Amino acid sequence: MFTVDFEPVGRRGEFNGDQSLLDCARQLSVDLVSVCGGIGSCERCKVQVIAGQASKMTLEEEGALTEDELKQGYRLACMTYPLGNVKLHVPAESLTAIQRTQVEGLEVDVEPDPPVRGLDADLTRPGLDSPLADDANLWAALAAHGIPAGRLDSRVQQTLSGQLRANDWRVRVALRGDEIVAIGAPSTRWLGLAVDIGTTKIAGYLLDLETGKTLASRGLMNPQISYGEDVVSRIVAASKTEADAAKLQSLLTEALSQLAADLCAESGAQPDEIVEAVVVGNTAIHHLFLRLPVKQLGLSPYVPAVASALDVKARDIGMAIAPGAYVHLLPNIAGYVGADHVSMLLATRIADAEKTTLAIDIGTNTEICLNHRGRMTSVSCASGPAFEGAHIKFGMRAAPGAIEHVRFDGSRLEVQTIGGEAPVGICGSGLLDVVAQLRLKNILDRGGKMGEHPLVQNKNGQPEFLLAGRPGLEPVTVSQKDVRELQLAKAAIRLGIQALAEAEGLAETDIEQVIIAGAFGTFIDVESAIAIGMLPELPLERFKQVGNAAGTGARLALISKSEREKAGQIAGRDGYIELANLPNFTLKFAKATYLA
Amino acid sequence: MFTVDFEPVGRRGEFNGDQSLLDCARQLSVDLVSVCGGIGSCERCKVQVIAGQASKMTLEEEGALTEDELKQGYRLACMTYPLGNVKLHVPAESLTAIQRTQVEGLEVDVEPDPPVRGLDADLTRPGLDSPLADDANLWAALAAHGIPAGRLDSRVQQTLSGQLRANDWRVRVALRGDEIVAIGAPSTRWLGLAVDIGTTKIAGYLLDLETGKTLASRGLMNPQISYGEDVVSRIVAASKTEADAAKLQSLLTEALSQLAADLCAESGAQPDEIVEAVVVGNTAIHHLFLRLPVKQLGLSPYVPAVASALDVKARDIGMAIAPGAYVHLLPNIAGYVGADHVSMLLATRIADAEKTTLAIDIGTNTEICLNHRGRMTSVSCASGPAFEGAHIKFGMRAAPGAIEHVRFDGSRLEVQTIGGEAPVGICGSGLLDVVAQLRLKNILDRGGKMGEHPLVQNKNGQPEFLLAGRPGLEPVTVSQKDVRELQLAKAAIRLGIQALAEAEGLAETDIEQVIIAGAFGTFIDVESAIAIGMLPELPLERFKQVGNAAGTGARLALISKSEREKAGQIAGRDGYIELANLPNFTLKFAKATYLA
Repeated sequence: MFTVDFEPVGRRGEFNGDQSLLDCARQLSVDLVSVCGGIGSCERCKVQVIAGQASKMTLEEEGALTEDELKQGYRLACMTYPLGNVKLHVPAESLTAIQRTQVEGLEVDVEPDPPVRGLDADLTRPGLDSPLADDANLWAALAAHGIPAGRLDSRVQQTLSGQLRANDWRVRVALRGDEIVAIGAPSTRWLGLAVDIGTTKIAGYLLDLETGKTLASRGLMNPQISYGEDVVSRIVAASKTEADAAKLQSLLTEALSQLAADLCAESGAQPDEIVEAVVVGNTAIHHLFLRLPVKQLGLSPYVPAVASALDVKARDIGMAIAPGAYVHLLPNIAGYVGADHVSMLLATRIADAEKTTLAIDIGTNTEICLNHRGRMTSVSCASGPAFEGAHIKFGMRAAPGAIEHVRFDGSRLEVQTIGGEAPVGICGSGLLDVVAQLRLKNILDRGGKMGEHPLVQNKNGQPEFLLAGRPGLEPVTVSQKDVRELQLAKAAIRLGIQALAEAEGLAETDIEQVIIAGAFGTFIDVESAIAIGMLPELPLERFKQVGNAAGTGARLALISKSEREKAGQIAGRDGYIELANLPNFTLKFAKATYLA
Repeated sequence: MFTVDFEPVGRRGEFNGDQSLLDCARQLSVDLVSVCGGIGSCERCKVQVIAGQASKMTLEEEGALTEDELKQGYRLACMTYPLGNVKLHVPAESLTAIQRTQVEGLEVDVEPDPPVRGLDADLTRPGLDSPLADDANLWAALAAHGIPAGRLDSRVQQTLSGQLRANDWRVRVALRGDEIVAIGAPSTRWLGLAVDIGTTKIAGYLLDLETGKTLASRGLMNPQISYGEDVVSRIVAASKTEADAAKLQSLLTEALSQLAADLCAESGAQPDEIVEAVVVGNTAIHHLFLRLPVKQLGLSPYVPAVASALDVKARDIGMAIAPGAYVHLLPNIAGYVGADHVSMLLATRIADAEKTTLAIDIGTNTEICLNHRGRMTSVSCASGPAFEGAHIKFGMRAAPGAIEHVRFDGSRLEVQTIGGEAPVGICGSGLLDVVAQLRLKNILDRGGKMGEHPLVQNKNGQPEFLLAGRPGLEPVTVSQKDVRELQLAKAAIRLGIQALAEAEGLAETDIEQVIIAGAFGTFIDVESAIAIGMLPELPLERFKQVGNAAGTGARLALISKSEREKAGQIAGRDGYIELANLPNFTLKFAKATYLA
């Protein structure tokens, strides 16, 4: 066994040399960036070997690392194996690090009407003259609350006799419809878990089911990222072998179990007091989470295996909450318009909007819905992972040191980083700002071509805009290629908005309200988004940034049966446009790449 | 590894010396008798070491084996371990051997009204213009049959997409209520499995769910016997460790999975075509099968954990039939009046009887029900395993060579063995006959004391009746102690009958009809049963022997929802008397031990 030591984060562990440094890092919760999922192609998981011996340099690494980096002992963690005790320096840009936990969202202010009720039951101690079976005894006690005899979850059946005797024939049950899903001591407070699983991030909320109050919330990375940044690579992996499909599921269920445990620890509760969960995610995430087949999701016509709302037993998918608890999944609309979109629509109340309203959740995949006079139509746009920093030369996620806002103050460039730290790279909102500022300064033309400017330098025949220097390191730049990547991403979104408006015979300017939901959407500068032509040019007061609405929708569906019903109605009402079916798609897409 | 060879059965296998010869025998399906479950106390698993070396003789064995047996190399299989290759001779009396498979029973002649329906579904191939989710597509196709959209079992969800594409969008579903529990090719014939799990034997039936026809039936031993012959020893074992409880469950579920596979092989079907099962057993078996707690069943007031009828997913208890199939369990009435009794009552139609009718299922535990003017009351009697040959000096189960009938022809004793083979021992019906004949000949007095007779010999101060010689072996005898054992067994039953009659203010002679159900009851001589005072003295035409009625009831409940409802009504209607609560129990019991 060798000791592998990651510095300056100060995590170390014992490994037998069978695992790459990337795998070691993962096991020690050192969040190395890995866009390609560990196949040596994204070149992001650079680490510096300070001491000790590692495996031979691979061809991938020789291609990926500069002369200087090679001299300094840099390696790609995914390609490198320890040959003895090793000590590593992890440069900040290789760390996804402290993610902003994207758990803030709209307030949950509905009257609780939870699917699971808590009821105290006072039983009669059985005797030879009344040897009532334990289940019959329990139902007899619940009859005092006007509850007719129903069903017991099979795990409740197995624990009932012990619980009754341990609690001297007084217990508290969790009743869901006609089924008792959990049983505990008389004082037990039943809890609910709401989770929004994004392609990149997960947001979790622990609620008191009775009061509807959020007790704790927490964000974490989606561990499926080890299989690739976008859902397509995960669909490919899950379709390849059963083992990968199983692993993609267990990565999620284990993360959610840990999330539940952490939220409970924070609230002085126990995971087995969580008697209901609501999980939302896009269709692919939804399917991977339930281990439904995903192959057909990756092939035209992109058909979901299951679209209806579902209730599955937590134990059947391996989630460590009350074993009899159900996990409720909101319905999907289409292969690329999933339950997270339904959840967002629920939280934003777009279904009730009287104004012509657009709701948009920007992410690796961007879903947009337009409600015009009660007709709701959605569209899905493959905006790609550029907003998360992927395929961008100095791109990174919204972590400390990421440039998140950029402004020209006259000719002086102002750069703001997350946490005020020395610049490490640039995150999505920063990139949006840079491109907007360059366009406003006419350094970029309408087609996105980078012109001349003192800060534009030529690198390998391609212009790059100099954003921020880094002592002893290459400066952070935005390349012509980076601009093109952003143009493709924003074009997909803009085309979606246009398609929805056109389908209703509207001009974009007829849109009276734009709700921007989601982690990324919260931090963008709307003016910049307009300046690059991602969003239509509307008065700024029509835009509203609401944070993680999908998480809010999950919480609503968790504590209210009527909200759950509403979600079903939204999914049923919502029409769907397939962008690829648009006439003149290619031409329209090309036009949508123009900056404003 | 050593070769262990059992002769003359001709089974051999490789073992590493860690397992006793009893365990080796079990793995090779050599059915050695073991009443004590392998702790060296019942002294029934005798085998003769013909060649090879075995472990040192234990004190238990020295106490158990005669001088002659020791000389001939006899050992107790449960106490002996191989030290090298060994060859063993298994005497017939150590074999439970070919059990009469108790699958015969009343005919099933109700109109099928199965809980699971088969339906063909013709789906529309999805396209980019109609990218309908696979589940929505299926429900749309079923709408043609007037079926509203419902639920998919989670395994059906996982296989749906593959099945639809493999079968070119034409499938057959198994619909149970609003849930699709299985999906297959268009031609699939859905099957059902009915099982009666007795303490000693299991009877299984494979039915066509649509026609209600029995396709195949099969009997086998209850493998839990390795934990002891009676349910009490299994309750004790399951209450001791979780591992034992798990093993007691898996012994059953594995046996039932094998049973399903065997029945299917016989019928040219596949186990995953079995989409519904009904399992009946006594309350302890029911609980062990579902891994419900049983500790409280073994303690006064003998309370079941669960009495209601249950539907559990086959996969949740590890039964290898269609993974989405439900196993339905009929309700229990009390700790010692279980679902098998309800099933028997259902099959015998005693609930509808207009005459005052007694239904009795004789076994290790005997359940009796009296219907008088529509009032049904049941009682449970701990008759013990004497009828299965346990605690009887030459007792054995109903296997080849067992003396099953005995008659005095004048002074000549006639003995009939199963299969007409040389006598090996005596089974329950034989013992009943012997004691009846000895009583009729006044060799036994009313109290059961054995008097003088040329065939009565003295053995260690106790009289024994000489029944049949065996060349080169001790003759088969019935000892005074054997008579006492039978008296205790029959007293329990008679006391139950008396208690039921008394509770209705009846004399036993008011009983107008007696239905005798169950494996053992089928083979007893009713006259003998009357002669020993086990059954009341009624005209013979009032008695009806109906075979395995519990198995018939399970089949009825399998193919008919209304029969299932009837079973629920029977359980609800049936009153219950606790024998131990009777005033003057001890005195009454003592009186009931008298022979007629």
